[in-house]
Amino acid sequence: METTRILKGDICYSTDKDTLITVPDGFLVCENGLCAGVFRQLPEIYSRLSVEDYTGRLIVPGLTDLHMHAPQYAFRGFKMDLELLEWLNSSAFPEEARYEDPEYARRAYSIFVNDLRKSVNTRACLFATLHLPATKILMDLLEESGLETFVGKVNMDRNCPDYLCEKDGNASADATIAWLEQTAGHYSHVRPILTPRFIPACSDHLMERLRDIQREWQLPLQSHLSENPEEIAWVQELVPGSRFYGDAYDQFGLFGGDVPTIMAHCVHCPPEEIQLMKEKGVYIAHCPQSNANLTSGAAPVRLFLDQGMSVGLGSDIAGGTVLSIFRAMAEAIQVSKLRARLTGDGLKPLTMEEAFFMGTKGGGSFFGKVGSFEPGYECDAIVLDESPIPHPQKLSLKERLERFLYLSGDDWVLHKYVKGRQLF
Amino acid sequence: METTRILKGDICYSTDKDTLITVPDGFLVCENGLCAGVFRQLPEIYSRLSVEDYTGRLIVPGLTDLHMHAPQYAFRGFKMDLELLEWLNSSAFPEEARYEDPEYARRAYSIFVNDLRKSVNTRACLFATLHLPATKILMDLLEESGLETFVGKVNMDRNCPDYLCEKDGNASADATIAWLEQTAGHYSHVRPILTPRFIPACSDHLMERLRDIQREWQLPLQSHLSENPEEIAWVQELVPGSRFYGDAYDQFGLFGGDVPTIMAHCVHCPPEEIQLMKEKGVYIAHCPQSNANLTSGAAPVRLFLDQGMSVGLGSDIAGGTVLSIFRAMAEAIQVSKLRARLTGDGLKPLTMEEAFFMGTKGGGSFFGKVGSFEPGYECDAIVLDESPIPHPQKLSLKERLERFLYLSGDDWVLHKYVKGRQLF
Repeated sequence: METTRILKGDICYSTDKDTLITVPDGFLVCENGLCAGVFRQLPEIYSRLSVEDYTGRLIVPGLTDLHMHAPQYAFRGFKMDLELLEWLNSSAFPEEARYEDPEYARRAYSIFVNDLRKSVNTRACLFATLHLPATKILMDLLEESGLETFVGKVNMDRNCPDYLCEKDGNASADATIAWLEQTAGHYSHVRPILTPRFIPACSDHLMERLRDIQREWQLPLQSHLSENPEEIAWVQELVPGSRFYGDAYDQFGLFGGDVPTIMAHCVHCPPEEIQLMKEKGVYIAHCPQSNANLTSGAAPVRLFLDQGMSVGLGSDIAGGTVLSIFRAMAEAIQVSKLRARLTGDGLKPLTMEEAFFMGTKGGGSFFGKVGSFEPGYECDAIVLDESPIPHPQKLSLKERLERFLYLSGDDWVLHKYVKGRQLF
Repeated sequence: METTRILKGDICYSTDKDTLITVPDGFLVCENGLCAGVFRQLPEIYSRLSVEDYTGRLIVPGLTDLHMHAPQYAFRGFKMDLELLEWLNSSAFPEEARYEDPEYARRAYSIFVNDLRKSVNTRACLFATLHLPATKILMDLLEESGLETFVGKVNMDRNCPDYLCEKDGNASADATIAWLEQTAGHYSHVRPILTPRFIPACSDHLMERLRDIQREWQLPLQSHLSENPEEIAWVQELVPGSRFYGDAYDQFGLFGGDVPTIMAHCVHCPPEEIQLMKEKGVYIAHCPQSNANLTSGAAPVRLFLDQGMSVGLGSDIAGGTVLSIFRAMAEAIQVSKLRARLTGDGLKPLTMEEAFFMGTKGGGSFFGKVGSFEPGYECDAIVLDESPIPHPQKLSLKERLERFLYLSGDDWVLHKYVKGRQLF
């Protein structure tokens, strides 16, 4: 049975990083979950169908969070006075260890998934923990939410505290296979993604086993890259034959190529690393707030965009604290301006169009044709709630959208559609 | 008649920049608008009085916004892709010109004051516009709100567009005297503050007249200092005898000393300027978000604090976009971390304690004994709404407060008291 939905409202979406399309009082037509187009006047063939009338409301594509740690949602916003490696040991690891207890996991993940469902995001790539039962609880809850997600059971078998460390590479790899087997075919909206924590936490043997698992199971991969100077120096010690951090992944055959791969942060990439990411089609998850909170720095996003690389935005909960990818858009712009002023490196700050593109179509493309309203795109749409920000004057659509980046809360959404299904 | 109130809850306040006092299940006693103290157990003498029971809620001092432009609230969050001088000409000035129309002013200021009343802030220092009727409308609305504010009719007589420029120094000064005469004695909660826009917009003669007005009327002063490199170079051209930007104010006798004075931004101060600010007791309004949005940079707040200078936080609406001074606290920390990483200048990032201090007692002290719960302080208290951020584990008071800096919205306040009076 064919199903068609028509949403009427003030529609904004990106076609490329420099082009924001705004259609006041437009019609978004969705057929069988895919966008058929945005029209200023409703074409005759649809004229007998009912219209979901959101006149006067902003309608934009659902946002994609390309990098975040679901278990860390419970402690977002505190213990923020440390850099990456210290923060992992004193904050992230002890908090993640709690997820050994399925009851705690259910309580914490229920809060997280409920908030994510209500949020402006429709897609997310999530790190779980190393624990199988907790990871399955997370996947169950996400499946019920109707959101489209990738979830990764984390691999970590070295340089971690005893209470949060897999015994060795084989134990970690075997647990991953068990997780894949136990969850295969169970979900329509949740997909598995291979998730080695980062080079310092993964032995060479684990990485080799993960490559085999990736090939057998045809899995995408997510990890961390060049976030913090100390981390980078440590990788050089741990993989002495590597030319740079990304090369360490590449030596294990886990740096893109045929396989969709996300590397979070990419703050301190040397030119050869950028070149290799470009060649291998690696996605960059830019996490501006996290990079500020953990004193990591400011990624050279301008370079990535100008070279046509794939860049999306990440909340990086709980390095970052805020779910909304609108907030990540605003912060990407702000951080790019501070980078320009403080380093004087001549990289032009990001524009609002570029930030909106990264948070929608840029990151969305990791999921396929996602994050735009162009014909053929999977129809993720959110109807925004501007009522908390009344204004005394007329505003253009672009002004209203830009304002939403800077001012909106996580859940200023009235209605949410994913692949054409209405969640609320 | 003596009035005593007693608030019970989880109480946090600063005594100095490094000391955050947390009292779970404590009692805040307020007598005739002044704090009598915070007690772990209610002293016997108060035992017969009724208690306003906010058990389980965070109670903290009201926050102070030391710098913002009330007329710019209407366009916060858009037109953000420019630096200061261009932004003034293309965004701020055209928007401010609308306030010549009292009807527009009433509509716009009503939205602003309503939001400020509901916000976490209890005190603010506000720029209005050059228009007398609009400025009085703003003062009337603020008076009704019950907040404690300083409001300044803006002086600007050069280098501004014709549609938003006073004819000359005498016209500007005379209008200021008229404003002071017309409003004198009208308000209990709103006080006038002298407000030359900044050196580029004020002729020498205007500055001389303002000094006379300041002495006659005993007025505090607010203005802008060393925000943007182009602006600083321009001041050097306009006042060629000045040794640095602050010296230009000082040459006109308008740079602190006996008179309480706020300078907003102070991003690019040379050492001699910092030294002079210190000698003259000038307040620094640190506006981290604005300094990012307008690509101004990141002020060296660590230097100011370590020298014991007076520093508060400003939203700088609409260079900044967000009213809540909790948000400014989080951003002050984030920006200090980016500054440390990107410049490598060795200035240690700000701590949560320092940020909370600046947003409460630091800025509050411009109003007198304000911003703490120590005995004798004017009792501004807010009872916070943490219900939007449920959590699965036990949190300490400090963790809950830190989380509030990073996650709270402008109006996550359940109850608000100013000088002991309950607003809601």
